[in-house]
Amino acid sequence: MMENLLSKINNPTDLRKLPENQLPQLAKELRDFIIDIVSKKEGHLGASLGVVELTIALHYVFNTPEDLLVWDVGHQAYGHKILTERRDIFHTNRELNGISGFPKRSESIYDTFGVGHSSTSISAALGMALASQLKGEVDKQHIAVIGDASIASGMAFEGLNHAGVTDANLLVILNDNAIGIDPSIGALKNYLTAVKEGKNPKQNNIIKSLNFDYSGPIDGHDLPKLISELERLKSVKGPKFLHVITTKGKGLQLAEEDQVKYHAPGKFDAETGKIHPKDESHLPPKFQDVFGHTLVELANQNGKIIGITPAMPTGSSMTYMMEAFPKRAFDVGIAEQHAVTLAAGMATQGMVVFCNIYSTFLQRAYDQVIHDVALQNLPVIFCLDRAGLVGEDGATHHGVFDIAYLNCIPNLIIASPKDEMELRNIMFTASEGLNHPIAIRYPRGRGENLNWEQPFEKMKIGKIRELQKGNKVAVLSTGTIGDNVTKVLTEVENSALFSHYHFPFIKPLDVDAVKSIINSHDHIITIEDGVITGGFGEQISAIIATNNLNKSIINLGIPDSFIEHGTVFELQQLCKIDVNHLKQLFNTYSDV
Amino acid sequence: MMENLLSKINNPTDLRKLPENQLPQLAKELRDFIIDIVSKKEGHLGASLGVVELTIALHYVFNTPEDLLVWDVGHQAYGHKILTERRDIFHTNRELNGISGFPKRSESIYDTFGVGHSSTSISAALGMALASQLKGEVDKQHIAVIGDASIASGMAFEGLNHAGVTDANLLVILNDNAIGIDPSIGALKNYLTAVKEGKNPKQNNIIKSLNFDYSGPIDGHDLPKLISELERLKSVKGPKFLHVITTKGKGLQLAEEDQVKYHAPGKFDAETGKIHPKDESHLPPKFQDVFGHTLVELANQNGKIIGITPAMPTGSSMTYMMEAFPKRAFDVGIAEQHAVTLAAGMATQGMVVFCNIYSTFLQRAYDQVIHDVALQNLPVIFCLDRAGLVGEDGATHHGVFDIAYLNCIPNLIIASPKDEMELRNIMFTASEGLNHPIAIRYPRGRGENLNWEQPFEKMKIGKIRELQKGNKVAVLSTGTIGDNVTKVLTEVENSALFSHYHFPFIKPLDVDAVKSIINSHDHIITIEDGVITGGFGEQISAIIATNNLNKSIINLGIPDSFIEHGTVFELQQLCKIDVNHLKQLFNTYSDV
Repeated sequence: MMENLLSKINNPTDLRKLPENQLPQLAKELRDFIIDIVSKKEGHLGASLGVVELTIALHYVFNTPEDLLVWDVGHQAYGHKILTERRDIFHTNRELNGISGFPKRSESIYDTFGVGHSSTSISAALGMALASQLKGEVDKQHIAVIGDASIASGMAFEGLNHAGVTDANLLVILNDNAIGIDPSIGALKNYLTAVKEGKNPKQNNIIKSLNFDYSGPIDGHDLPKLISELERLKSVKGPKFLHVITTKGKGLQLAEEDQVKYHAPGKFDAETGKIHPKDESHLPPKFQDVFGHTLVELANQNGKIIGITPAMPTGSSMTYMMEAFPKRAFDVGIAEQHAVTLAAGMATQGMVVFCNIYSTFLQRAYDQVIHDVALQNLPVIFCLDRAGLVGEDGATHHGVFDIAYLNCIPNLIIASPKDEMELRNIMFTASEGLNHPIAIRYPRGRGENLNWEQPFEKMKIGKIRELQKGNKVAVLSTGTIGDNVTKVLTEVENSALFSHYHFPFIKPLDVDAVKSIINSHDHIITIEDGVITGGFGEQISAIIATNNLNKSIINLGIPDSFIEHGTVFELQQLCKIDVNHLKQLFNTYSDV
Repeated sequence: MMENLLSKINNPTDLRKLPENQLPQLAKELRDFIIDIVSKKEGHLGASLGVVELTIALHYVFNTPEDLLVWDVGHQAYGHKILTERRDIFHTNRELNGISGFPKRSESIYDTFGVGHSSTSISAALGMALASQLKGEVDKQHIAVIGDASIASGMAFEGLNHAGVTDANLLVILNDNAIGIDPSIGALKNYLTAVKEGKNPKQNNIIKSLNFDYSGPIDGHDLPKLISELERLKSVKGPKFLHVITTKGKGLQLAEEDQVKYHAPGKFDAETGKIHPKDESHLPPKFQDVFGHTLVELANQNGKIIGITPAMPTGSSMTYMMEAFPKRAFDVGIAEQHAVTLAAGMATQGMVVFCNIYSTFLQRAYDQVIHDVALQNLPVIFCLDRAGLVGEDGATHHGVFDIAYLNCIPNLIIASPKDEMELRNIMFTASEGLNHPIAIRYPRGRGENLNWEQPFEKMKIGKIRELQKGNKVAVLSTGTIGDNVTKVLTEVENSALFSHYHFPFIKPLDVDAVKSIINSHDHIITIEDGVITGGFGEQISAIIATNNLNKSIINLGIPDSFIEHGTVFELQQLCKIDVNHLKQLFNTYSDV
């Protein structure tokens, strides 16, 4: 019986030919298919398992792709991808040149809007609905599927607030499983939970107050109920809202029981759900754990230290602080804007605030960094996790713009440590008081040092580290990408020609020291794991040009295009900042 | 009697010595004082008149500055400034080296948090309240005063959502006057209006649902009522919310009647309120009007054109489109994030969307520009109003970071027209379809051309305009700051040495053309009205350095510090990009 139905469904048109009573069987097959592939190839598991029935019901009831379906974030869209012409390539998920882990317009006509960051779906679907209205396409349906963690983000509220005063044909489906990557938090979540538990009378309803036609909550795993409710909503005019209750990880017992771990569990046994044990004790730590443990260590010594994370306690390892000092650590939900200004408010009262935000998500709080922190010169300590290329999450998640978008902000210090010890020392130095805000960017994943728990050393802001001294070519690197340089310099025969300078600080730059380095070499190479345009290297180029130093310079980094998904190593190759490309380049220099 | 009381009140301690029955008299004097100064010196009138009683009540009841009072946006804080040690310098409001038009930490201990952009107050005050809790300062009060337009912005919702699950001693006061700069919009506004009109039972309350202790609505001009309610709230634990109804412009009849015009009316008669008539018919138009009229002209010819503004219809002149095509123009409220992704959603359906956002406010939607528009290469047309130095609004409002923060985004075209005709032609060119998003930045205020309504001409993307040909020094400018160059070149004796190239497009750069320009001159000067770091000029510097062109270059623009308030001319002087500084610089070049 296995995959009897699913194997014949290439697209929603095929799906809609099935009799409704076969859909539960299809749901079982689809769930098994997801589990089977993800158990071997890794990826995001729990979210997609939770919406198997909802996904089938949506494509069954609505006339996709004519009707427009927008998935918020997109972790939950695996079932959607499999049912929309991508079953046979689903095993390439998140691989270089394979399909994306998120809906993506260029991949399929069924992916109406590219996603990755949360809380965009209501605005996007409303834009589509208003466009359809203007075009006179009165029968077209527009559906946004959004989770309870995402709907609590400010942007989603803005979308609801606008939609409520339109007569757009918009259906917002709240996929309420009480969890994002970590458990949802906030007053809205508590309110929704009360609604689920029948503790709020339906007439007392936030969503109704915003002028939506509210229905639910209904069981999101009950296919007949979902189908009849979606059918009914098709003919309801104006903005409408369906509250659906689902279980993240549904159908795999261990995933239901430990929803945080099974958000993206890595490889596991498809039958039992057991995650394949890995002995990682001999590996260097993740930068995230270095951050987390160091923060607790510092917080032990300084009662004014506070940690803030917008909905990423597990991913960032803020969990350690939350366990050690529950009153001094705040998960504020998917609310980067609030997180930054909350940190600023605390800083005005003398608190030493470590605000940990993924580099790509700090884009959400750019104005707050400028207007609330830097303009007031408040010494907030931003820890930008997942800076640089992040690998399989792809174009939506690479933290490659941060140097460029932060460098133009006055008062801000930007640090990019080379290794675990430097991350610790920069955090220590910042905690001692800098009289300026600082952004410390570090990558996803493991470093290279087992012996990282060294005593703290205070760092001098702006100081450049000479790692190797040559006299012909100066290589200027910042951040962990400098490891590639170090490796190459141990391997190339002409290594003695090269100096290697590591810049723990991108801003402020010690211009005199930079000029001195430039003047004592013939050629300059810069390398960073951020965009070249407006990045660290171009600052060095500008120093050469505006000081008329007349030396050749090459700026290496991320080119001016969006980088797709793949392993970090593959993507470094694409960007020509991997060890092999560097070796080729370095080999072109000779003593004559 | 006039200013009998006010003249003796230097700070809230003085205020708190008055018997309560004298406060209405003080309110009258304070209102008259504001009207008197603003009538002569200009500034923001209506918002401060609306909160005269609330301001007095807050400083009367609370122990400021020990208790922490945060004003959202800050247009309404004139009364606060006058009562807190700045009465005698209030006439310097918004002048160079005078007091700021907004609360500012460096200006006064009573200004607990610098503001300017909306919707930050709840997050900031919550941060302060949580800090006080950790410090054991149990009696300290923390108050955020926020308007009904600001509270509808996503960031404010994020703050409420977090506050509702804390037991922080936070009081949010909603100053509900149903208007921001333009009338408030959105479902929340309609809901609040229904509450005001008694149409919603109190137990059905969005704010209560978010776990706030809600009280009100009360009359914000009734001093005894305000004082007794604030006194009561002092002892209420946890997050609490007071809904206050005020009238913007209160006490000046014309300001109450035309609240949009009297937001910042310019000079007027303090007795009658009549705005001094100005004959501006002989002046070139504002860029805003060029935008507004041109949009309507284009929309007349193309039914797919849509206009979006986040709460700035009057300021941006989107009003013309709203009047001409009400169904194709959207004011979405203070919701820049939503505005951008709404535009992206519309663009997926083939609409030609002009999304007009002030340069400084696009910082609020930075992630949406990257993630929802540029990554998907959707041809949204961003019109960035008030780019460059904006003058009296000061550091919070200068649109000087946009070139730097946009330049690093792949797929995006950045245009910076030199004059009204070019703005029109770039808008026309964009409306014809570019297959890329574009950001068109232009300044606040008037251009220099009366005869601006020329027939449309299609522009070539990336094409550089040669305005003058010399052979020794090439001046490369972008945007209207190029006018300063033009002026200087008509005045300096050595003008023949200079070429002047205008870059209507900052991105993409025609690198070959730039190299050819550089190679045919000895010296290069770049000038822009944006930050030097990461800006246009540094792109030219990088071309020189990475191509080893060995020419001298000077990058002129905004230095790496926050620029305060003053006239645009004064601020150009500070930044050394005014005519006189350019003249001095140009005079240093000679033929030998």
